Parts: sequence; C-alpha cells; structure tokens
Amino acid sequence: MNKEIFDRGLEIRKKVLGAEFVEKSLATADEFNMPMQELTTEYCWGAIWGRDGLPHKTRSMLNLAIISVLNRPHELKMHIKGALKNGVTKGEIREVFMQVAVYAGIPAGVDSFRIAREAFAQVEKSA
Amino acid sequence: MNKEIFDRGLEIRKKVLGAEFVEKSLATADEFNMPMQELTTEYCWGAIWGRDGLPHKTRSMLNLAIISVLNRPHELKMHIKGALKNGVTKGEIREVFMQVAVYAGIPAGVDSFRIAREAFAQVEKSA
Amino acid sequence: MNKEIFDRGLEIRKKVLGAEFVEKSLATADEFNMPMQELTTEYCWGAIWGRDGLPHKTRSMLNLAIISVLNRPHELKMHIKGALKNGVTKGEIREVFMQVAVYAGIPAGVDSFRIAREAFAQVEKSA
Amino acid sequence: MNKEIFDRGLEIRKKVLGAEFVEKSLATADEFNMPMQELTTEYCWGAIWGRDGLPHKTRSMLNLAIISVLNRPHELKMHIKGALKNGVTKGEIREVFMQVAVYAGIPAGVDSFRIAREAFAQVEKSA
Amino acid sequence: MNKEIFDRGLEIRKKVLGAEFVEKSLATADEFNMPMQELTTEYCWGAIWGRDGLPHKTRSMLNLAIISVLNRPHELKMHIKGALKNGVTKGEIREVFMQVAVYAGIPAGVDSFRIAREAFAQVEKSA
Amino acid sequence: MNKEIFDRGLEIRKKVLGAEFVEKSLATADEFNMPMQELTTEYCWGAIWGRDGLPHKTRSMLNLAIISVLNRPHELKMHIKGALKNGVTKGEIREVFMQVAVYAGIPAGVDSFRIAREAFAQVEKSA
Repeated sequence: MNKEIFDRGLEIRKKVLGAEFVEKSLATADEFNMPMQELTTEYCWGAIWGRDGLPHKTRSMLNLAIISVLNRPHELKMHIKGALKNGVTKGEIREVFMQVAVYAGIPAGVDSFRIAREAFAQVEKSA
Repeated sequence: MNKEIFDRGLEIRKKVLGAEFVEKSLATADEFNMPMQELTTEYCWGAIWGRDGLPHKTRSMLNLAIISVLNRPHELKMHIKGALKNGVTKGEIREVFMQVAVYAGIPAGVDSFRIAREAFAQVEKSA
Repeated sequence: MNKEIFDRGLEIRKKVLGAEFVEKSLATADEFNMPMQELTTEYCWGAIWGRDGLPHKTRSMLNLAIISVLNRPHELKMHIKGALKNGVTKGEIREVFMQVAVYAGIPAGVDSFRIAREAFAQVEKSA
Repeated sequence: MNKEIFDRGLEIRKKVLGAEFVEKSLATADEFNMPMQELTTEYCWGAIWGRDGLPHKTRSMLNLAIISVLNRPHELKMHIKGALKNGVTKGEIREVFMQVAVYAGIPAGVDSFRIAREAFAQVEKSA
Repeated sequence: MNKEIFDRGLEIRKKVLGAEFVEKSLATADEFNMPMQELTTEYCWGAIWGRDGLPHKTRSMLNLAIISVLNRPHELKMHIKGALKNGVTKGEIREVFMQVAVYAGIPAGVDSFRIAREAFAQVEKSA
Repeated sequence: MNKEIFDRGLEIRKKVLGAEFVEKSLATADEFNMPMQELTTEYCWGAIWGRDGLPHKTRSMLNLAIISVLNRPHELKMHIKGALKNGVTKGEIREVFMQVAVYAGIPAGVDSFRIAREAFAQVEKSA
C-alpha cells in the first residue's frame, strides 16, 4: 500500500460519500474485506479521483453513466448522493440518465430514474 | 416521424460525426435499414443531443464512458472522433478511460485506449 | 414531442401494462422524471410498439428475452405481466426463458423463472 | 452424451445453419473442442431447439434478440443466416433489431443492422 | 432426458447446494418450471460439474468469478455457500473477488464482498 | 505511483505475458496512454497478481473465466497464452470454457473456444 495515495484517496472518498459512511465502512471491516476497502480507497479514490485531469463534478457524472450501465443499484445510489455533494444538479442527473436510456436502453434509464428518486428522498429526509 | 426533431437531430449528427459520413449513411440506406437511420437521427441526435441540459462536450464524454462499458468498438471509435470535434481534449479522453478502467475493469480500459489510439491516427492521417 | 406518436404510444402502453399503472406513473411524475416518462411513451411505445411489422404478442416475447438478458428484474416482471395480457401463454414464457438459459447462461434462466413465478402469483392474487 | 437428443440436435443444427457448415465444424474438431461441439449440439440444438413449445421461426427471432444483446457478432451473423432459412423475413429481422435498439440501446441496434447487411450480402453472393 | 446424467447431476447438486434445498426446489416445482429444474440438473450439474477435468473446488472458484461478473446476486450467494462446502476458504473467496474487482470493475467487487458477508452470516447462523 | 508495487507488477507481467511484449508496450507508450500502462502494471499485476492468496495458475484460470464473460477477445487471447505459461493445460482451458458455456451461455463458450484455437496456433507457430 502507498500511504500517501491511500490518504489522499481517503480524504476524497470522505468528501464525496460522507465521512460518517466511510469511517463506518472501515471500522466494520474485518480480515475478510479489509483488503478490498484498502484497494478501493487507494486505487479508486486515490489513483483515479485524485488525478488532476477532470473536475470531481465531471467524474461524478461519468460515474453515474458508468455504474448505471453496469447495473449496480447499491453503488449507483451511493454515487447519486455523492454527485449531489459534488455539485451535480438534479437537472444534470436527469440528463445523464436520459442519455443512458437511449444509448444503453430504456430499462437502464427507467431503473436509474427510480433509484435516483429513492436517493433524493433519502437525502431530503436526512437533511 | 417528427420532422422538426429529425431535422434538428440531423444537424447535430452532422456537426458531431461529420456531414460527409452522415450523408453517405443516409444515401446508402435501403428499405431494410432506413427506419433505423431515421430512429437514430430523431431519437438519439434530436431528442437527446438536442436537449439543453448539458453541453455537447459533456455529452461526448458521457458517451465515451457509456459506449466503452457497452463494449461496442465501432461506435466507440466514431464517438472518439466526435468527441475531438466537440472540444474534448486527448487528455480528457485519457481521464475518461482511466476512470472506465477502474470502474468497469482493466480490459475495458485497455480496449478503449487501443481504439482511441487508432482513432487519433486516422484523424491525424486525414487532417 | 410528437403528439400523435405520443398518444399512440400512450394507448399501447396502457393496453400492455394496464391503464391504472400507467396513469399513476404519469400522475406521480415530477419535473425530474417527466421527460423520461415522455421519452419512454413516445419512443418505446409509440415509435417501436406502434410499428406494423410484428404482432404485439411477438414483441412481448422478444422483450422477455431482451430484458432477461439485460438483467433488469423490475422491468422484466412488468413485461411478464404485459406478455400475459398480449396473449403469450405460460408455456410460451417457459420456452423463452429456457432458450435464454442456454444462450445467456443458467443464472439468467434461473433468475427469470423465479421472477416469472412471482409475477404469476401477483396476477392470480389480483384477479 | 444422450445419443437420441444429440442426433435430433444434429439434424436441427444442420437444417438451420446448413449441413456443410456443421459437418465441417465437426470434421475439424479436435480433442480440444470436440466436447464443446457435442455440448452445443446436444444441449442447444437438441434439448432446446428440439422442444415443441415454439416454432423454429420464433426461436430464430428470439435468438437474434438474445445474441444481439449479448454482443457476439460471429454468432449473430450465423443466426441471421439461420433465421432466413427458418422463414424470418428481412422486414421481421429489421423489427427485431429496431426493438433491440430501443431496449438495449442505439449502439446494439446499429451494430446489429451492420452485421445483418453483411450477412445478407454473403447469402446473396453464395446464392 | 438422460437418466444417468440427470442422476449424477442431482447427486452433485445436492452435495454442493445442500440436499434439503435441492429437494425443496424439485418438490415445489410445477408444470411451469420443472423443465428448467431438469435442464439445470442434467446439463449444469451432470454434464459440466460431472466432468473429470477440474476438481469441484476449482469449479466453485470459477463459478464465483463468472456469476459475480454476470451480476446475479441470488445465484452468487448460493454458490458462495456451495464454495465453502467444496473447501474454498474465506481467504480464497476474498482473492477471487479482489481479482474480479480489478478485471470487472470496483462495483462488481464491492457488491460481491457485500453478498459474501451476508452468505457467511447466514451459514454461521444456521451452523 | 508506488515504485515497489509497480516493480513487482512489472516482473509478474513480463513472466505471464512475455518480456518482449511488455517491453514493447511500454516503449511505444506515449503521453496519452502511459498512465494506463502504469495503472495496469501497478494495480493489476502488482496489487492483485502480486498477492499471496492464490497461485498464479489459479489466477490465470479465473482470468480466462472473467475475461471470457466480459467479452474482450484481445485481452482473452493474451491471457490464454499467459495461462499456458502459468502451467494451465489445454485440457484445463477446455474445462474453464465449457463451464463458461453453461453459466454465461453457449455463444460465450463458442467464441472462447475459437479464440483459444487461434491462440494455440500462434503459440505453436512461434515455438
């Protein structure tokens, strides 16, 4: 593990997904899934999100598109909430999923809109 | 068919993919694939690309991510060239595919980088 | 939006998915997802389902195969119920999913059979 | 191996894909891929295509949809030719791929139309 | 159906997934899904798992990788439990999903780790 | 970049894919794709292949399954050759792809067998 990249990744991960959520994920990790927590933090959040080439807002929009096509609802919901934190507006989220609907098919679009509405409701409730 | 949306779509499609390419696609369409040409132009380029909510440059980046994950090399190469026309830099294309590599897996990233290099070579040759 | 195609799409959508369900979807749509409702109704149900080239029963069978492979359980369940409305028999649904099992893999088949049994139970309960 | 199902499968496979092609596949099989040839013939063509519940024409249309979504061009081209042998018209093939384009996304549709035109050209040339 | 292969498949299926679970699946099968039960037992468990070329432990590891990429949570959980029965250790399951995370993307890895922890908890509870 | 993990990754990558191939990939990398070369070497070959939990032979078999399902022919061919280097026999490769055929569908199996035969022919020719 590269401590410097891990730390940078941890900071970005907390900023996007929320410090409480991330700290809980790490605190409840056990011998089984700790290596996965470390890999994600270092490579995903440190080595990619920590790069300069794109603003975090753009990376969030890309992730909504990617994870929607990959069909991973848990991860999608988390990244919808993260996108709001990174300044993506609801209107922009709508545009991303409209584009997904046409390029990856109507069911991918419909599912993503449903998950987005659930995410919005949870964010508003906890606000 | 909605003539107004089709015409708007045709204009955008020509701007992004090149007038010559699009005119040839339509001119060589026959009874079999003309409905698909019309659907794509109206639905994809008119109803989605014609919307106001996101700049074309952002839509291009989203498409690179989506089509890379969908694993459609022909379409990806076309949209890489279109992305360059829409002002996406090579550096930004690299960032999109680095993010794809981590979220959709290394083979998706490696394939996309190879296709991008082919696309760049073709663009430079024809310049 | 093309009013004529939208209206034709709305009619077909109600016939296949049930008027009550469709009216509720439209009535509860908000600024966020109304454009997706319109896109789906116009392009999916109007521009495709409204075409003459295949009977609705065949389109339902194709959709069961497509959505099963796409791995979208919510949409699949809805289209299983729609298929019954369009005259696809339980025996024919079984054949579609047997074919999916061999061409798209056993887990796709097993999942689709489980979802179909849930859909049948819901239809029988509400009958 | 179940000899009876294998023989029924072999007969159907020859009818749909052409006796010459199938005989060549079996004749050039070696120790490495013979078990795969046998599995395909028995499991795919015997145990599924040999079932009574759907006419071969419908099974061909389902396969075009399934393999198009699965994104397997070699297999798709082979099954487009097989679909023509099973009485699926070009107009019906167009409808299947239009439906794929909306449910599985425009790139899946565009790719399938291109492959279909290649398949038609090969069939006409060899006629 | 080939009685001999079906019986061998049934035996292996019971060994890996548990006799109680398999007997219940067969006992609650009806006219609709019995052919799918038979297909799975004969081809999946008899014709593939019954082959000599790989030990069951290796087949279990391959299945974790395959079903994780295929994104089928129900089937994945079942096969995680089966993998434990076949002697795959938790540490080895971790390695399989770490490798999935890098080759098929972080969300596939994260989802698989979450499902694995649920499976482990269920196994420990019923022990 | 973590120099230690990169170096370990580079060594393993050369061992599995061949020193000549890897050196050429790095030597012809430019500003555009060098970051991807580094990510792959460090993340894929260092952080995953460099872990102790599974022998390289098992990792090769897992990769054949994963990349076959992901439908990435270029990468699959490269990893088939790598698998032979890691001691996976042709017979074991056959078993992996038979299992893929049943769990991910016949077209995935057929495609993988075809690619394997091409890879074997290239290896034998260059031997």
